[in-house]
Amino acid sequence: MSATSEAPVFRRLCVAGLGLIGSSIARRVRQDGSVGEVVAFDADPAVRRRVAELGIADRVAETARDAAEGADGLVLCVPVGAMGRAAADLLPHLLPGAVVTDVGSTKVSVIREVLPHLPEGATLVPAHPLAGTEYSGPDSGFATLFDGRWCLLTPIEGGDRASVERVASLWRRCGAMVQEMDAEHHDRVLAITSHLPHLLAFTICGTADDLQGETRSEVLRFAASGFRDFTRIAASDPVMWRDIFTNNRDALLEMLARFTEDAQAMARAIRWGDEDFIVDRIERGRRIRRSLIEIKQA
Amino acid sequence: MSATSEAPVFRRLCVAGLGLIGSSIARRVRQDGSVGEVVAFDADPAVRRRVAELGIADRVAETARDAAEGADGLVLCVPVGAMGRAAADLLPHLLPGAVVTDVGSTKVSVIREVLPHLPEGATLVPAHPLAGTEYSGPDSGFATLFDGRWCLLTPIEGGDRASVERVASLWRRCGAMVQEMDAEHHDRVLAITSHLPHLLAFTICGTADDLQGETRSEVLRFAASGFRDFTRIAASDPVMWRDIFTNNRDALLEMLARFTEDAQAMARAIRWGDEDFIVDRIERGRRIRRSLIEIKQA
Repeated sequence: MSATSEAPVFRRLCVAGLGLIGSSIARRVRQDGSVGEVVAFDADPAVRRRVAELGIADRVAETARDAAEGADGLVLCVPVGAMGRAAADLLPHLLPGAVVTDVGSTKVSVIREVLPHLPEGATLVPAHPLAGTEYSGPDSGFATLFDGRWCLLTPIEGGDRASVERVASLWRRCGAMVQEMDAEHHDRVLAITSHLPHLLAFTICGTADDLQGETRSEVLRFAASGFRDFTRIAASDPVMWRDIFTNNRDALLEMLARFTEDAQAMARAIRWGDEDFIVDRIERGRRIRRSLIEIKQA
Repeated sequence: MSATSEAPVFRRLCVAGLGLIGSSIARRVRQDGSVGEVVAFDADPAVRRRVAELGIADRVAETARDAAEGADGLVLCVPVGAMGRAAADLLPHLLPGAVVTDVGSTKVSVIREVLPHLPEGATLVPAHPLAGTEYSGPDSGFATLFDGRWCLLTPIEGGDRASVERVASLWRRCGAMVQEMDAEHHDRVLAITSHLPHLLAFTICGTADDLQGETRSEVLRFAASGFRDFTRIAASDPVMWRDIFTNNRDALLEMLARFTEDAQAMARAIRWGDEDFIVDRIERGRRIRRSLIEIKQA
């Protein structure tokens, strides 16, 4: 997968936020030579020290200013609730004409928070790689995380196409497949495919946790029968998910409302023994599963 | 894992219902010699033919009477809604003193449906192996399905202990770990660990299926980010799950009501930006996940 024969996409890429995603980007672009130099920055001194120990960046900067100065590319990999602050700290110091991108799971809010800090001549190309694991932090990243996964770009209307192409090229060289999409549409699609499933998973863990005594301990013991798959989703980073929920509030609450209506309809069918309705709902789940297998996303 | 040196648990075991679980039992006990002879019966002629082709039983019976006659053990592996009918057809023909067991996911309903058909001198030992895959039918079974998995027994109060020990022994020889539990307690534990997760998974697939046009197609395309794990759960057999839902109605509706209250509380916190509440809920999910890892159920 190495692409060293191609020219670097950026001379100096600043990676801000070295969690699972940021540290995976650093590892991959450095391994492939997709950028000339990787400068890492994280607001947490412990993360900065660990990144230096891991040796996954060419340089670890101690301040936002030092991190951004001289960079022609910046990828913001902080929780979506921290994007505005990170943009304010970093963007003023970038090279003229720099390209700013991000990896946030909500796109409307990131555009709203980051755009006001964009210097004259710089461009913003919002992006969201659909990749992750249940782990977080700089140790959890790996260079192949994005191989064969989608990265969604939500370009600003009327924005610079050359910048969009550079960011797309960066992601393709990280192994991802790239698709462009409107930011609001992105937030609705992710609300149902990712944010709502996580909300349901966190919630059922809480519901189980509230059960008393023996039942609660046996829930853990006999988790293998479905519940376990929910707990895997529910193991994700709390700050990241808090920010996603509050920054995609409207789309998420709409999807939850639709889901709740559907769950109540299922409850009513179970209460009154409406077997046709129950089977129809289950069959739809199977059809969706088959569709996923057909398009090789299962 | 072979245990041919031990005496067979039953001289002739009738396996009724040759789906994923029934066919896995047949394969395992025959491979290990845990029973003297395996007679298979299924109400569906196509399944009977397929079981004969697969050669996973010593004999495939064409009628319930022929299947049960001469058997000192019977394991009912039909959907829980079909247990009463299967018991009525099979139980009168068993050998005197035979042991009847089952693999149903709801135990109160199975006891209620099967017990009235139990001949004088025969005993019922309800059981539920916590094992499965997203596949169904006689081709989907395999001999190692139960290795290291729990099998819950819910013995009838005051019932014959020797029969309980025989069924426990059968399951241990199938590779399972055995635990006894009260039938009502079983149904509550399974309502939250298995039945509710499946209901939520079926429901979110339906909610996604109802989305219009482009959003719906992109939900499938970008399913990787959480939704995919739900569709895996949702691929299970419709009749089996319809029966589970209607036969564990009270416990399931209670757990769904608790869950819905908790989901609404999360929605309210998201709407009003109550970040502490959101983080607390997410942290609980992580704690439960860690507990599972500690007790090696993750």
